[in-house]
Amino acid sequence: MQTEHKTCSDACYQCAIACEHCAASCLNEEDMAMMRDCIKLDLQCAALCRLVGQFMALENDYLQPLCRVCVDICKSCAEECSRHPHDHCQQCAQACRTCAQACLQMAA
Amino acid sequence: MQTEHKTCSDACYQCAIACEHCAASCLNEEDMAMMRDCIKLDLQCAALCRLVGQFMALENDYLQPLCRVCVDICKSCAEECSRHPHDHCQQCAQACRTCAQACLQMAA
Amino acid sequence: MQTEHKTCSDACYQCAIACEHCAASCLNEEDMAMMRDCIKLDLQCAALCRLVGQFMALENDYLQPLCRVCVDICKSCAEECSRHPHDHCQQCAQACRTCAQACLQMAA
Amino acid sequence: MQTEHKTCSDACYQCAIACEHCAASCLNEEDMAMMRDCIKLDLQCAALCRLVGQFMALENDYLQPLCRVCVDICKSCAEECSRHPHDHCQQCAQACRTCAQACLQMAA
Repeated sequence: MQTEHKTCSDACYQCAIACEHCAASCLNEEDMAMMRDCIKLDLQCAALCRLVGQFMALENDYLQPLCRVCVDICKSCAEECSRHPHDHCQQCAQACRTCAQACLQMAA
Repeated sequence: MQTEHKTCSDACYQCAIACEHCAASCLNEEDMAMMRDCIKLDLQCAALCRLVGQFMALENDYLQPLCRVCVDICKSCAEECSRHPHDHCQQCAQACRTCAQACLQMAA
Repeated sequence: MQTEHKTCSDACYQCAIACEHCAASCLNEEDMAMMRDCIKLDLQCAALCRLVGQFMALENDYLQPLCRVCVDICKSCAEECSRHPHDHCQQCAQACRTCAQACLQMAA
Repeated sequence: MQTEHKTCSDACYQCAIACEHCAASCLNEEDMAMMRDCIKLDLQCAALCRLVGQFMALENDYLQPLCRVCVDICKSCAEECSRHPHDHCQQCAQACRTCAQACLQMAA
């Protein structure tokens, strides 16, 4: 597996972990209603990151367009998470930005 | 869930079933080497179809671009499968075409 | 693919659709805090059902123990969903019960 | 997220990457027929590892039985991969053993 692909795959799965953890933590927050959009984006971002992380191992004609969508979803999730002060949100925002960067390089 | 979304979700999961079954059957064919591309496309198509089937339940800004990629991957998989005489390939090609049609409507 | 396996695979994916739809709908309910456990179980149930639905296409030594866990998770999700009056919860409870039944037969 | 859970989640996703890479590489080997079982186990192991990696972020009553199945599938995959001299197989065997170890601790 090429280094660049491995780096992106790692970033995708780290992002998926952060998003799942953020979603699970949001579902335990007292003021859960404020976290609606955060939970929704977390779940979508985690699912797509897992798929892109998986596809990275394959020669794949569809990697570029999927990486492009992944960049968009990671950016949206980072933006939403960065609005909330919780540790899990701030950590998730950071993981999303790192993943967006890695996917942007693969999409080029 | 809107009827159109449910229809597309069903088509995605039926396509995933057909692709997984085709991949598993190809892996048991005597002349497995001829089935390389078929297996690869089956696995990718199944994974993306499951994701799109899942995302269909969510209001999702990313559904349209993902559906567009899904149309492409389903068409490629249908084309490859239709080259092989095996029942599992022919059935998979049909499921892929149905799914491509459903995703095309959602992508519009 | 054997009829019994196809039936179970269908039930798994229909359950996944119902669970994802229920989770997404719960995240839009005004009284979202009451739906915490429902959302959590929906998401776990959907993920495991998709895996079992996928594995059904493969000859798989691990299908039986996974089906057993799937029976448990489907029952828990059905129990939680049946406590809520919302249509999406009632429909999800029904899909979970159908899936638990199908997985129970495969686990035997 | 607790350190132990994060460690296991990382091991699961690293194992998934190694398995997907091994499967994709096996599908490109000249003597692909010898790799039948390796490919099948790779794909199953990758899928279950991704699920367990995902579930690790949730408080989850079903984590223990799923980890137990994951230990078994990782051990089988490691055993099969270790029979083949290819780098991707040897690396996959190692990742599977590490993941089996991490899941064994979570299953306890």
